Amino acid sequence: MSNSKTFYAINPANNEQLEKAFVVNTEEEINEVVQKAAVAFDIYRKKDKNSIADFLDLAAEEIMNLGDALLERCHLETALPLARLTGERGRTVGQLKLFATVVREGSWVDARIDKAIPDRSPLPKSDIRHMLMPLGPVAVFGASNFPLAFSVAGGDTASALASGCTVVVKGHPAHPGTSEMVAGAIIKAAVASGMPEGTFSLVQGNTNAVGEALVKHPQIKAVGFTGSFRGGKALYDLANTRPEPIPVFAEMGSTNPVFILPGALAERAEAIATGMVGSITMGVGQFCTNPGLAFVQKSESSDVFCNTLKEKIGEAPAGTMLTLGISTAYNNGLQSVSGTANVEAIAKGKEGATPNTAVATVFKTSIDNFNQNQGLAEENFGPSNVLVEADTKEQILEAAKNLQGHLTATVHGTEADFANYGELFDVLEKKVGRVLVNGYPTGVEVCHSMVHGGPYPATTAPQSTSVGTNAIKRFVRPVCFQDYPASLLPDALKNENQLDIWRLVDGELTKSAI
Amino acid sequence: MSNSKTFYAINPANNEQLEKAFVVNTEEEINEVVQKAAVAFDIYRKKDKNSIADFLDLAAEEIMNLGDALLERCHLETALPLARLTGERGRTVGQLKLFATVVREGSWVDARIDKAIPDRSPLPKSDIRHMLMPLGPVAVFGASNFPLAFSVAGGDTASALASGCTVVVKGHPAHPGTSEMVAGAIIKAAVASGMPEGTFSLVQGNTNAVGEALVKHPQIKAVGFTGSFRGGKALYDLANTRPEPIPVFAEMGSTNPVFILPGALAERAEAIATGMVGSITMGVGQFCTNPGLAFVQKSESSDVFCNTLKEKIGEAPAGTMLTLGISTAYNNGLQSVSGTANVEAIAKGKEGATPNTAVATVFKTSIDNFNQNQGLAEENFGPSNVLVEADTKEQILEAAKNLQGHLTATVHGTEADFANYGELFDVLEKKVGRVLVNGYPTGVEVCHSMVHGGPYPATTAPQSTSVGTNAIKRFVRPVCFQDYPASLLPDALKNENQLDIWRLVDGELTKSAI
Repeated sequence: MSNSKTFYAINPANNEQLEKAFVVNTEEEINEVVQKAAVAFDIYRKKDKNSIADFLDLAAEEIMNLGDALLERCHLETALPLARLTGERGRTVGQLKLFATVVREGSWVDARIDKAIPDRSPLPKSDIRHMLMPLGPVAVFGASNFPLAFSVAGGDTASALASGCTVVVKGHPAHPGTSEMVAGAIIKAAVASGMPEGTFSLVQGNTNAVGEALVKHPQIKAVGFTGSFRGGKALYDLANTRPEPIPVFAEMGSTNPVFILPGALAERAEAIATGMVGSITMGVGQFCTNPGLAFVQKSESSDVFCNTLKEKIGEAPAGTMLTLGISTAYNNGLQSVSGTANVEAIAKGKEGATPNTAVATVFKTSIDNFNQNQGLAEENFGPSNVLVEADTKEQILEAAKNLQGHLTATVHGTEADFANYGELFDVLEKKVGRVLVNGYPTGVEVCHSMVHGGPYPATTAPQSTSVGTNAIKRFVRPVCFQDYPASLLPDALKNENQLDIWRLVDGELTKSAI
Repeated sequence: MSNSKTFYAINPANNEQLEKAFVVNTEEEINEVVQKAAVAFDIYRKKDKNSIADFLDLAAEEIMNLGDALLERCHLETALPLARLTGERGRTVGQLKLFATVVREGSWVDARIDKAIPDRSPLPKSDIRHMLMPLGPVAVFGASNFPLAFSVAGGDTASALASGCTVVVKGHPAHPGTSEMVAGAIIKAAVASGMPEGTFSLVQGNTNAVGEALVKHPQIKAVGFTGSFRGGKALYDLANTRPEPIPVFAEMGSTNPVFILPGALAERAEAIATGMVGSITMGVGQFCTNPGLAFVQKSESSDVFCNTLKEKIGEAPAGTMLTLGISTAYNNGLQSVSGTANVEAIAKGKEGATPNTAVATVFKTSIDNFNQNQGLAEENFGPSNVLVEADTKEQILEAAKNLQGHLTATVHGTEADFANYGELFDVLEKKVGRVLVNGYPTGVEVCHSMVHGGPYPATTAPQSTSVGTNAIKRFVRPVCFQDYPASLLPDALKNENQLDIWRLVDGELTKSAI
């Protein structure tokens, strides 16, 4: 320990070092942790579904048991307000409990049985059974912007543990104290639930080497990541060039375009602008689904819209960003957009008097200028938005067709708009994971139907979601059992259906025994 | 046309060129074809489920309408016997029809609805709905060893078309005439079904450039491939380094280890050996699931087993392989194994008098020697097998743990063996896509429960299957609709459930309307 490299958390509100040194884990330590996760996997994956569900519930309880101390440390490390962190803690334990219900219900394993037909001609048909099984130890990278709900005990950890995988989290270096506390709660729950040592572990460090060692470890079988494009893409490339490539579920954020159609603009420009400012500035703009791009058609109403944006953004207080690095990147982004020809900053929020505060900013430009400056479409993580003014419907459709992959797209419209702009919806559903109507993309509901994902470059895994119960499917693969004796079949596939789950038997969905 | 490069099919039975020149498509032609597939996609993906199902059924009918001419050309191009090709045609049209039933039933789209709770506190809950939607134009690479069932109208094409994707097939250069005929049948069915031009296309060529241009085309959104490790891995790497990486579902074959446990060996050594020789030599060993590796524990029974192998293999006629290249590679593989120290060829089939015939061969070696020579575990595509003799159960378990990813693993055992070797099954279900008991891995049932896939290097996409109805899930991604007006919702997600499909409504599986 005495020779170990260490690092400290920094309070972004004053750039001062917070108490307590954290060890930067070495490659040897990471190797040991992953080996334990691999040994634990063989035991953990065989646990019955109720044991795993109970463990997830207990982990939620132990996180609550950390009490205000967790929220206070987290606030110091992230500058996120206590009210927000209280809500985020609620989401975190809610996620764990939701996955517990999914595991307890059990049908997620996609059990399928095709019964044998021994006398089929010309060849007999074998008895074939199918279910989803966990991949192995999963590496999870904590996100800076959700220090609870998408970090150590976040969505990736919850879904991986729910699927029967063991988990090694690489804590985000911006909130090591929070990470350590939450990891302690999960490990306490694991021990009390009789789960093997290594079911869950945390490694820490403020260098890329820690994460790289984890992703390159041959016993790691999948990666969950939420963060920047640069970080996610680097891990994706690293995983693809391993001797055994592994899937990387990297959610890398996006600009989340908003389309405000003429009817809606005429009917409620002020209300939409007010709502959008709330979405832009929420959490100091530090959400993956923050709306960074908006399209309107020029009209009298679009002027009302702009004026309201200006007024409401003007009232927005400067919030402290998560880290000095994020704050610096945000300000560089503002400068880059400001420095683009024919782009006007039409609305600015209040300046802050303390370090790392972000000034909310809305820029405006013409569709032609937007089309000529690709940089304007890029995410600037923080409370800013580029409002693009078009002249025609065709320009709007063309802009939609030119979009890259995003997490979300939002359309504000009236029934008449929807009838007129049907093609826009056809385009958007090819571009994003979630299309919203008359709403705001921030605020991701954790439920069965949620898709938090989308085509590249929003994610490296467009075929999956990182939020919602379907996330459990990321960490599994199908395995098929042919002519197995009953004694060897997993419970989910035994004739009796003792788990009382939905199964596809000879193509028919049923809970009946065979 | 007159300036085009061309190529010819070669009859592997005599190495002579077959009639008719085929054009090697240029990059410009491929670009044009993919552009058409992209335009067609926007229309095709909106077709109602019955229209797509009818199209698949009609494609099957049109393939049958090609009659004996198809089988005869295919026989000339592949040397596969007419009886085998007749069976394979049955599987091909059966697959198309099975996917038609899946599409017609409709529940595969995984419709999910979480109803709104407007008065939820502290925040209202939105109405959120989810379904799977097709990715876009898919590139399919025809396999040489299934000129019908895994080529132009094979499993990849059937599942991609079923999902609502348009398809561009790169025909395998070993059977261009077969490819052209089958493509004609699909296109005829597409036209008659009112599907847009470009719904299905075939490109051909005997160079890597054709396939590379296809995979690199920005409008191609996924790749299906069945073939060699070298070929599949090259496409995988190419797809990962595109500006927009895309999924590659490459099935690259494997050695399909067989474990014959002591009880089974004592009870029925001769029967198992006879069955295994059938599996090794079926189709001249040219199956992805051909058993290339077997493990036994040395005993009197293992001597009986070896003697039967020797006798039965000795009776096996030499079959003509698919191509000169495959035949050369097989013979090189035999030489390489023969040249490994302490490996004995214990059984050899008959020699052939015509070109490109393969001599079935079983080698034997000790477990220690096997462990010291990694090359012995590698696939040699053709009718050969390496039989590994162990002394102890622990050696068998250790060998299983050291396996790479395979498509299948097979265990022959008695109930007593199963009780003794439980750990072996635990290991194997982590290593392969399908575990068989007391059977033979060749012969892949096309059904709902089949998994034809497995961990790398058997495939580049262990989380999916290329055979069976679940293959439809490869070419889709989830899309979520938040607070959509009824007028814009896809039929699968409308309140009425007019498609009468299973949906997960607030977490409960139901066919009820809302």
